[in-house]
Amino acid sequence: MPEMTPSVLTMGEPAGIGGELTLKAWVDFRDQLPAFFTLDDPEGLRAIARSLNWDIPITAIDEPGEALRIFNDALPVMPLREDARAVSGAPGTASARAVLESIERAVEFTRSGQAHAMITNPIQKETLYDAGFGFPGHTEYLAELVGGGMRPVMMLASPSLRVVPLTVHVPLRKALDALTTEAIVEQGKLVITALRQDFGIATPRLAVAGLNPHAGENGKLGDEDRSVILPAIKALAAPGVEVIGPVPPDALFTPRARQKYDAALCMYHDQALIPIKALDFDQAVNVTLGLPIVRTSPDHGTALDIAGKGLADPSSLVCSIRMAANISASRLAFKST
Amino acid sequence: MPEMTPSVLTMGEPAGIGGELTLKAWVDFRDQLPAFFTLDDPEGLRAIARSLNWDIPITAIDEPGEALRIFNDALPVMPLREDARAVSGAPGTASARAVLESIERAVEFTRSGQAHAMITNPIQKETLYDAGFGFPGHTEYLAELVGGGMRPVMMLASPSLRVVPLTVHVPLRKALDALTTEAIVEQGKLVITALRQDFGIATPRLAVAGLNPHAGENGKLGDEDRSVILPAIKALAAPGVEVIGPVPPDALFTPRARQKYDAALCMYHDQALIPIKALDFDQAVNVTLGLPIVRTSPDHGTALDIAGKGLADPSSLVCSIRMAANISASRLAFKST
Repeated sequence: MPEMTPSVLTMGEPAGIGGELTLKAWVDFRDQLPAFFTLDDPEGLRAIARSLNWDIPITAIDEPGEALRIFNDALPVMPLREDARAVSGAPGTASARAVLESIERAVEFTRSGQAHAMITNPIQKETLYDAGFGFPGHTEYLAELVGGGMRPVMMLASPSLRVVPLTVHVPLRKALDALTTEAIVEQGKLVITALRQDFGIATPRLAVAGLNPHAGENGKLGDEDRSVILPAIKALAAPGVEVIGPVPPDALFTPRARQKYDAALCMYHDQALIPIKALDFDQAVNVTLGLPIVRTSPDHGTALDIAGKGLADPSSLVCSIRMAANISASRLAFKST
Repeated sequence: MPEMTPSVLTMGEPAGIGGELTLKAWVDFRDQLPAFFTLDDPEGLRAIARSLNWDIPITAIDEPGEALRIFNDALPVMPLREDARAVSGAPGTASARAVLESIERAVEFTRSGQAHAMITNPIQKETLYDAGFGFPGHTEYLAELVGGGMRPVMMLASPSLRVVPLTVHVPLRKALDALTTEAIVEQGKLVITALRQDFGIATPRLAVAGLNPHAGENGKLGDEDRSVILPAIKALAAPGVEVIGPVPPDALFTPRARQKYDAALCMYHDQALIPIKALDFDQAVNVTLGLPIVRTSPDHGTALDIAGKGLADPSSLVCSIRMAANISASRLAFKST
């Protein structure tokens, strides 16, 4: 319920750009955004603002509902219990517990309905391993916290495009080995459901990318397109959906082609990420599909090289906050139909 | 010598859009383009113009020099000896010899210097096999005609980007198998030479893409980036060039990243073609590097579904004609330094 509850932002890596992005998102965009609060260290945020000469009121809150009341006048920050002190640009393990606490409590607030969605600032995985973090990435950690054995799926959404890679953080050769008809069908179904439930599209149009150049040219340039991908497309066909493909990968992202589908299911990480970052780098949002909670995230990293300098662009975080609210509203409308 | 000789266009598949593109390029853009002629069937072109109600003067010529004299007043067409008759949208083998004749004679005119460059309209490979065509594509055929055992290399160039894929028409798995340090070095050198000679860039900046997600994250997501690609980058480093990489593939084509290099060497077909077609579909030009002659080509196929309807967009052909003249001028200037 975007109107009745705030969304919650996580701190992310405190040595990265997360803090200044949150400050910028509030100070420059609060009039255009639904209310949010962040699970972070109020003193740390005040120190960042002070060092950049940003005059930003920050108010510590005890429970999510307070965020709605004070959001217009101050950035609502719910303090962490763990020590989050960090030096910009130099991530260390001392703040690892605080990074995880921020994520864990954001999940709790979102599951309990006290927040309508969670938006995660980028983390630095390497610093978290000692504190018990043993996941390939942020998203897998969330899935574990939420429980239920879901396989979370990453969608990137921007004004031009929605893309979903079949695999994410695996070597390209392993991504090819993992390409099965079953995996495509499973993920395709999940994307179709998300287009209906999260994006309010009654009759979703899904484009499935080919794998090989020209989608294999009928087997002459590789066989997966017709032996693995085409059967999945046939299996996904159903009343009320439109599934096309295998589309030659280089033809899938032309301006004209992009008008013909609501999401593109891509066969590996970069097939999805290259076009969306080329077209809409600053406005791409990472949406986690397949979780019972709404979670979005800016589509960039901790940017340690510019952290603390006030240079980081909050566009992707702002888009993430807005999209999370839209998805929450769409889910609510979907449930009530 | 763009000022002194015309460029020559090939007919391409006569059942495709080549004829109408050539007509449109002349009638709409002749004021902005250096003189060209086409090796085609004058009657066939007249029939296309007539059926579309286009009033376009067509003059048959006997030798390339005539094109310069008549170009302002009529489209210069050098007739073929072989039968080029075809039905729009329905390619057949009857015109195969004429398709090949057009290419072969364009090569001869360009090699002899009677034309400064050749621009090839798209062909339909399947119809050519019976007539003795046994090549993976247009480019390999040209390399064979030119002789000398060169390995031609495809560059795609557009206003946003220049990209060169390491391999072209091979299955993705085979492209991974073909990835060697030697191949990257060889191709990288060729691209650097082309940036100097064909594009007039005295100090070329070459970006080399990684292969795996995030360029492998130091081996965690695949080893080729550091074991195969990085050594090639070190080998390519030389005074007067700037070689960067392996760049994470999804970071290579963001607006900011594109400012930092003159060409991107990509590890497989779609890594190069996805971004350029997403960004500049109508204006991408195929430039063949590594040939003694200048050859460009529009970056699209025969578009049989719209052939003969007057709908085809000549932008890429027009860009190809212009770029061929620029490359010819650049080569001339390069030789004279």
